[in-house]
Formats: sequence, C-alpha cells, structure tokens
Amino acid sequence: MIDGIELNRLKIIENKNGNILHFLKCNEKSYKGFGEVYISTIKTNSIKAWKKHIKMTCNFIVPIGKIKIVVFDDRKESPTKSEIQEFILSPKNYFRLTIPPNIWFGFSSLSVKDSFLINFADIVHDPDEKIDKEQNFIDFKNWFKND
Amino acid sequence: MIDGIELNRLKIIENKNGNILHFLKCNEKSYKGFGEVYISTIKTNSIKAWKKHIKMTCNFIVPIGKIKIVVFDDRKESPTKSEIQEFILSPKNYFRLTIPPNIWFGFSSLSVKDSFLINFADIVHDPDEKIDKEQNFIDFKNWFKND
Repeated sequence: MIDGIELNRLKIIENKNGNILHFLKCNEKSYKGFGEVYISTIKTNSIKAWKKHIKMTCNFIVPIGKIKIVVFDDRKESPTKSEIQEFILSPKNYFRLTIPPNIWFGFSSLSVKDSFLINFADIVHDPDEKIDKEQNFIDFKNWFKND
Repeated sequence: MIDGIELNRLKIIENKNGNILHFLKCNEKSYKGFGEVYISTIKTNSIKAWKKHIKMTCNFIVPIGKIKIVVFDDRKESPTKSEIQEFILSPKNYFRLTIPPNIWFGFSSLSVKDSFLINFADIVHDPDEKIDKEQNFIDFKNWFKND
C-alpha cells in the first residue's frame, strides 16, 4: 500500500425498508478533521484525472456505480516513491479510501450509469492548494483503459 | 418554518464529466460539529418513521431518488409547538435540511428506484439518545400517503 493511504471496509446494515451504509465517524483513525463534504458524479466512460492536493486529506466512498481510482506517489521522501496503485470502489466493494496530501489521483467510471463519489475532506475547497494535470500526464494514461 | 429547522438550497456545479454537488462546509451555519456521516437508503414505497433524537442535529441531503421528510414539533416551549411540515428533497430539488434535536421526523420514498438520504450528524450514533415510534404514532400517519 502506498505510504499514508488507508483502505477500510465499511459496514452495511441491512434493513427491509432500506440499508444503512456507514461512511465515517469522528473517532476513526481516517478522520483528520472536517472542512467540507461534497459529491462528485462521474459519467459513464468519463475520466477525471489527474489531481493533487497540497493540504487536503480525502476520504472517498462510492455508494452508487463503480469507480476506478488510480493513485501515484511522487513524493521525494516517500518509502513508496514512484509507486502506482489502483482501487475499485462500488456498493458491492464498499470501502473507504483515505488519500493523504501530495498524492496524485484520478477517477474513471466503470459503470453503465453515473457513478457517485463522496469526498469527506479535512479542509474547505481551495483552488490554491489543488493542482490539475491532463490525462496524459507522465506515462500512466493506460491505467484508465477499461479492461 | 418549524423553529430551529434550516432549509438551504445547495449548489450543483456542472461539468461535462460529471457534476459536483455541494453538501456542507465547516464555515456554514448549519454545521454544528461532526460526529458521524452515513447513508440511509429507502426502498420504493417504503416508510421509515418515526424517529426523534434527543441530542443529535441532522443535516440531510437526497442526491438520488426522491424523499418526503415529515417533521413534527411537540417541544413544550417551542413557538411552533404542534406544527407539522413536509419537505420533498431530490437531486432536482437539491436542498439541505437541518433538523435540531427533539423534533420528530420520518421519511418515505417517492421514487421508483431506491432513494439515498445522507445524514451529516454532529454526534456519533447512540441508541440511547434516539426514540423510535410506530408509523401510526399520533394521528399523522396520513402524511405518508403517496398523493
């Protein structure tokens, strides 16, 4: 696992009128403070990549659809420098992915309907702490081919 | 509006790869602290009612489906004592509903597919601060008829 990333399987509590899906509690290790929570939808066959936050820790879940999240570590001092990893999140593969600052990441939707990614972030959105790159950034564009 | 309830229209930022839906920021008035965030799904034609929290403030959004939320105020000292109100939340009617402690509420799904309600709560789930009643509690069962 890339240094600092956390992957936690979350509980789904079944109920005849509709299930309860856990996301995050304030006493869990992945909680790093609260700044903002928002939803990013990703259309079928769409890619949102690449992004890096300088300060924000992201906590992602995917309660609708299916999303591939690719992360890339280019932090100079990291024990996992240059490593790339992918995670597939969905309601059937119901995990919370915590991404620390200074890790590149991108998403692609693997679902035939729109996918929903919820981000619980420890700071409020701030364009000055976010870097965007084109999809062909470095050589890992192939990570988003749907295989 | 029942005393203490807040209803805020939320921004949806359009994007060709998928929209961004705001939920809550730490500098907004409806933010009362963070305890837990979770998703409650409600099946088609299902009702989840009635519930009251003694301590929890709930912040609800409905990013999928369509949910009728009925609230009832029986607080002795409230200026809106005995009032009942209903709210219909959906992605097209994209609002955040903030419900303070000691207000009764219930949900019904008005959607042909499962509806998703996300609750951002200021305390962690605690069965000791939550009261459940049957659907026929008092005389407002008719509020959940699908009209």
